[in-house]
Amino acid sequence: MIKPNMNYADLKDSYLFYNIAQKTKAYIEEHPGANLHRLGIGDVSLPLCDEVIKALHEAVDEQASAENFHGYMPECGAPFLRETIAKHYEKFGVSLSPDEVFVSSGASDELGDILDLFDRDGSTLVIEPAYPAYVDANIIEGRRILHLPSSEKDGFLPGPSADFVADLIYICSPNNPTGAVYDRPALKRWVDFAKEHGSLIIFDAAYEAFIEDESLPHSIFEIEGARSCAIEICSLSKTAGFTGTRLGYTVIPKDLSYCGMNLNDMWVRNRTTKTNGISYILQKGGAAVFTEEGQRQIKKNISFYKENAKIIMKALDEVGIWYTGGKNAPYIWLKCPDNMGSWEFFDYLLNEIQVVGTPGEGFGACGEGFFRFSTFGSREDTEKAAALIVDLLK
Amino acid sequence: MIKPNMNYADLKDSYLFYNIAQKTKAYIEEHPGANLHRLGIGDVSLPLCDEVIKALHEAVDEQASAENFHGYMPECGAPFLRETIAKHYEKFGVSLSPDEVFVSSGASDELGDILDLFDRDGSTLVIEPAYPAYVDANIIEGRRILHLPSSEKDGFLPGPSADFVADLIYICSPNNPTGAVYDRPALKRWVDFAKEHGSLIIFDAAYEAFIEDESLPHSIFEIEGARSCAIEICSLSKTAGFTGTRLGYTVIPKDLSYCGMNLNDMWVRNRTTKTNGISYILQKGGAAVFTEEGQRQIKKNISFYKENAKIIMKALDEVGIWYTGGKNAPYIWLKCPDNMGSWEFFDYLLNEIQVVGTPGEGFGACGEGFFRFSTFGSREDTEKAAALIVDLLK
Repeated sequence: MIKPNMNYADLKDSYLFYNIAQKTKAYIEEHPGANLHRLGIGDVSLPLCDEVIKALHEAVDEQASAENFHGYMPECGAPFLRETIAKHYEKFGVSLSPDEVFVSSGASDELGDILDLFDRDGSTLVIEPAYPAYVDANIIEGRRILHLPSSEKDGFLPGPSADFVADLIYICSPNNPTGAVYDRPALKRWVDFAKEHGSLIIFDAAYEAFIEDESLPHSIFEIEGARSCAIEICSLSKTAGFTGTRLGYTVIPKDLSYCGMNLNDMWVRNRTTKTNGISYILQKGGAAVFTEEGQRQIKKNISFYKENAKIIMKALDEVGIWYTGGKNAPYIWLKCPDNMGSWEFFDYLLNEIQVVGTPGEGFGACGEGFFRFSTFGSREDTEKAAALIVDLLK
Repeated sequence: MIKPNMNYADLKDSYLFYNIAQKTKAYIEEHPGANLHRLGIGDVSLPLCDEVIKALHEAVDEQASAENFHGYMPECGAPFLRETIAKHYEKFGVSLSPDEVFVSSGASDELGDILDLFDRDGSTLVIEPAYPAYVDANIIEGRRILHLPSSEKDGFLPGPSADFVADLIYICSPNNPTGAVYDRPALKRWVDFAKEHGSLIIFDAAYEAFIEDESLPHSIFEIEGARSCAIEICSLSKTAGFTGTRLGYTVIPKDLSYCGMNLNDMWVRNRTTKTNGISYILQKGGAAVFTEEGQRQIKKNISFYKENAKIIMKALDEVGIWYTGGKNAPYIWLKCPDNMGSWEFFDYLLNEIQVVGTPGEGFGACGEGFFRFSTFGSREDTEKAAALIVDLLK
């Protein structure tokens, strides 16, 4: 008799984006013709850069030709792309073998699938506020979850604590939703802690391309000792606008062995069993991101979002609101003024100035009283929203 | 202390394709300039059809334009494609709601991932010979596996047996590797058996497009009662040459509820947690397969492979070798002559006439003494191989 995975019954319904959509819809129905300024969006708005478009068209043409057609790709990634990404890490001073790089459909796919590698009776530490899928993917696996809260006091960059020891530790830096970034000494403390307790860090580097401060690490493998206690999951979604095009990569060093099993070998076996590789077309498009011209073009797009960030940060500075992020991340995380709650501030901005953001409480209980602005919106929306915020709150 | 998923230690190394590659390589090294005739390949050789190529180029152009750019796609599939596929099922007399169709990266990805829905202490029935990933994906999950052997006597289409009752039942029809196809009455017996025992059928329909006999079912949902005991997993890999382009779909009827949990709802939750949807570009390309012109073009490609099948079947008929498949499937499964073993026959064909096939023993113990020819090769290779087989074995 079939029995479902009953862990699904433990999932809580997330009403965050549903509630935002409902409240926004209701506002527009009551105020026909209202012009909303959207700073809630977690999706990019600029199209793919020319270098990627060119490569995608070329790859499609190859799939049209009997001579150049590509059938099944190697399950762990095309050698040309694994080599390109390994080489890209040299910029961070990180030396990787191409077979430590696995091409993926994106970070969100890997953050859950990677749990296949671990014993399900283990525990997982989630630093909150957090991307809600960290928690949900671990609930589906039936893992025990420890929630480590962070706050304004630690700049939303908490250090490890002996009260929160877990087998797996999710770290997202630059962080979604807070935009906060761990510096080298702080990340070293996490690496040392993981090694001391035999924990494994799952490092979500999806926003690394937004780092401009040269002292901040892009990869956990810039930290000494990380090769023996960390896996890194990255994506081209925000780096190069691949949210709807899909491509990412995962780094699993060969140094990770536990109970006589090697995680890199296990992931090879997982991918060869459970996938038939990633689309040749997308891998060709992804490789174009890492050419000299590709890098120049994606940096131009990132600069555009950074300019949005500056416009929002200037407004918040003007009205004296505390915030983190924005400088090395596409998100700005602010303290709601006048001790307002997250949803209270959401309603206030929507009703008073038609600005839509994201209530921090949706990313974990400790996000209550905080609010996320995204810098992925249009310039026009961003400028109008910033001016209206200053008028409303100064 | 991190503990790996120890089920990986129970995986057996598969030497099938590795051994084929090694033996072939050794032969070429000993016989420089030898011209091999490859009937072992499980990959398509014809390029994507024009209709798909056109759609892929158009989609890439949309990703280059600020006005038409597509970011994050709905996690369960773009509505346009879910609707198109649901409509496609009407041809089989199957009525589906679009939200019973989930767009995927391909069948191999889903055949393992779908196990996320079920309690891991359950059992799985695999009808052998079988696609090796069925077994391996279930070993990784730690499920108990029952191997149901088939044989020449039952035409490699065994019926259910009270000695083999399991929670999950994998059925692949048309079958890889045997090419055998269940007819309606035989499939009805499996559906009735599943309902009687509270089992769920995972129906792998990856080769349905090769069915030409109108009495044979393309979908398990053509069978009365299947909506309450089956999930269907399909792919465009063989249907439309998407092996290296990647796209598939999974049908989960809304009728599947167990212990108060609905599998369709659970899969929505799984996809929204563990993916960010499938590439817009690939979904546009996939939709083109289902247009009138797309269907005409892919059928032309399938006819080409069918012609290869006829050439091989004619040769086997001439030398009096027993086989199944070929008529409604891209594979031909034959009994090795003179009581040769699978690998013995492999060596014989390679050494005597430079024909490369696939030893049946690689698909499960009951495949010993059998051999698979694929019809996906070039016409030239197929014709030469067929002529050489007749000369050698008649």
